[in-house]
Amino acid sequence: MKKINRGVSMKKHDQDFMRQQNKITVYELIKNDSPISRASIAKKTGMSPTTVSRIVGELTNQGYVAEFEQISSGLGRKATMLGLKGNSVLSVGVEIDKHRISLGVVDVNGAVMVSKVHHRIPEESVEMTLSTIVRMLQETVESEGLDSSRIAGIGVGLPGIVDNENGQVVFSVQLGWRNVDIAQRLKALTGYEVAVDNELKVKALAEHVRGAAAGSKRTALLGFGTGVGSALIIEGEIYRGESNSAGEIGHTTIDPNGAMCECGKAGCLQTYIITSALLLEANKIRKVDTLEELFEARRSKEMWAVQLIERALTYIAITVNNVLCVYNPDIVILSGELIENFPEIRQEIEDLCFNRFVWEPLRDSFSLQYTALGEDGVMIGSALLAQTRFFSLE
Amino acid sequence: MKKINRGVSMKKHDQDFMRQQNKITVYELIKNDSPISRASIAKKTGMSPTTVSRIVGELTNQGYVAEFEQISSGLGRKATMLGLKGNSVLSVGVEIDKHRISLGVVDVNGAVMVSKVHHRIPEESVEMTLSTIVRMLQETVESEGLDSSRIAGIGVGLPGIVDNENGQVVFSVQLGWRNVDIAQRLKALTGYEVAVDNELKVKALAEHVRGAAAGSKRTALLGFGTGVGSALIIEGEIYRGESNSAGEIGHTTIDPNGAMCECGKAGCLQTYIITSALLLEANKIRKVDTLEELFEARRSKEMWAVQLIERALTYIAITVNNVLCVYNPDIVILSGELIENFPEIRQEIEDLCFNRFVWEPLRDSFSLQYTALGEDGVMIGSALLAQTRFFSLE
Repeated sequence: MKKINRGVSMKKHDQDFMRQQNKITVYELIKNDSPISRASIAKKTGMSPTTVSRIVGELTNQGYVAEFEQISSGLGRKATMLGLKGNSVLSVGVEIDKHRISLGVVDVNGAVMVSKVHHRIPEESVEMTLSTIVRMLQETVESEGLDSSRIAGIGVGLPGIVDNENGQVVFSVQLGWRNVDIAQRLKALTGYEVAVDNELKVKALAEHVRGAAAGSKRTALLGFGTGVGSALIIEGEIYRGESNSAGEIGHTTIDPNGAMCECGKAGCLQTYIITSALLLEANKIRKVDTLEELFEARRSKEMWAVQLIERALTYIAITVNNVLCVYNPDIVILSGELIENFPEIRQEIEDLCFNRFVWEPLRDSFSLQYTALGEDGVMIGSALLAQTRFFSLE
Repeated sequence: MKKINRGVSMKKHDQDFMRQQNKITVYELIKNDSPISRASIAKKTGMSPTTVSRIVGELTNQGYVAEFEQISSGLGRKATMLGLKGNSVLSVGVEIDKHRISLGVVDVNGAVMVSKVHHRIPEESVEMTLSTIVRMLQETVESEGLDSSRIAGIGVGLPGIVDNENGQVVFSVQLGWRNVDIAQRLKALTGYEVAVDNELKVKALAEHVRGAAAGSKRTALLGFGTGVGSALIIEGEIYRGESNSAGEIGHTTIDPNGAMCECGKAGCLQTYIITSALLLEANKIRKVDTLEELFEARRSKEMWAVQLIERALTYIAITVNNVLCVYNPDIVILSGELIENFPEIRQEIEDLCFNRFVWEPLRDSFSLQYTALGEDGVMIGSALLAQTRFFSLE
């Protein structure tokens, strides 16, 4: 059990934290209200002109912000206004999945300038994966003629438990990795700062910034595929919890007498819906190698396949309800292989949710959506994460 | 389904919100770092001296902050320092439960100066409950000789779904209330500003401010009794979600084929553990009127009672796991009738959690605790909520 550090002053009162918050506030103001003057920033935030000038200076030096002259309509005087430098600052987003590596260059608005996908062998070593990433990065920079000094850093998103503060993969069942110092190793190979996070957390961030959840204050994203998980974005920030494990719904217990889960417990949610569990059940009837074959059997009205998928859809609707009850988000985004590759189930899930499984007082409290960024979400979110992290490194 | 208001600028960039945040920042600094000078506040926060002076002026006028002279050790000059006025500002906390009403006067540190408890008849009208509260308040003010102008406002905590922004009880199964304008009515009767919230949310706040969760950054409080629910405090603030329903775990679905819940769904978590559900099951065997009788039967090793409570404890441990997986808190506080009146189950719950139901990667990530404030938690938390709300009204 963990010991609580009692009496420690809260993060909120910490001076470094205040400086950091002030910098982010100024950055966000310039991003959203540009063109804007230093005086106007001071007025809107209550900060002193000295503080504003210091922060704007830092942002200008880092290449985020540019000055330009604006003729004031009233007096004909020139005023110095501030705006973001747009795509003068870029970052690289990388998604590492079991079967593929995606890499893209992304601007401050989350727009993808260029991207590449590379096939990945599930059993390949960490070295192999990292050297593939380095090669993809070099090729991209060269083929696009990018100024590599404009790249703020690299963000990596992958399935599993990630220690985002130290840039370590604690454990990834899908990749077969445990305690991999990925940020440090990739930084050593490329020279760039590297941020690492769980794929669903960055995917949710991307959908919040420029996807299905733009304008949402509390976004919950659910992923159904080789794993089951969720992520919560509160007012634009990833909610991580104590050990970056918030949202690990795959191991919420549904039935203490249920099937064994790979984690050693019985009846975890994921035993009802992840790809490997569905295929394991299907293979009790006959040889089935892929989800596509399972859905083919269902389309042919093979009763076992109909029932197996019906049960999975039931548990997807239950998951939507359970996440609503705990997070009470304004939007729920469904994502993952099961949702994205088999759109035929969407209407059924919606019917199960709104007619049956969602608790009545919450039925009007949210909007059910699907990812707008599709397969690019993790890559974009990872790149945005890198921008935020680099930004905070000063 | 809800429509998302796209493109709306985030709360963070809102000027009123900035002013509010700045005021809270200054207040918190004075509270935690007093004695502190205006210049030091400006330096620590990056705010302009004008902003600091305006906020300190407001806080002084509202009676939260006082000035005093301090001889500076270095120069012998007198410096004007700021500190909180301590118990010069008070608030009233009220807990309305099915069978009792508690009312107390609480200072800015959450200390209870005086409190009263009144028996409540479950079927009594809203009018009756409100007039009891008014009478208790008058008696308290008179008997203690309190200056009523020092009372910042009233906070009310109760079980159910509460629209905290409008001060309305949307629905309370335990009280039998639906759409009750409690803040407005109590304000009309007393003249004080009134804040209303769900009992578990304010209880968690109280435990965070001066109870078992002092120093915690992410506190999850669970309540097991006439209802089942949870509350999450993130960095000192109640996490409410879109409609103040975050944490309503009682209606998370555990088993789609389970027992019917009063909400109209089958297999909700609460059907396994709330008092009425346990008594309903017990009465299938023999007449049992109270939890005490059920536990008596268990102590006498009546097999049905042993099994019924064993199942309940299993689902309590499952709840701890499920809340850990979604919120990833640093502390989990167990509370409610079942936990507080039957401490004999605590060790069993801990064993079930740590040996069996808590997902292995999270076992060392949190501390399992019990409420430190006991029955006073809701009252204290409601009073603290009123202080915060009053504070934000300017």
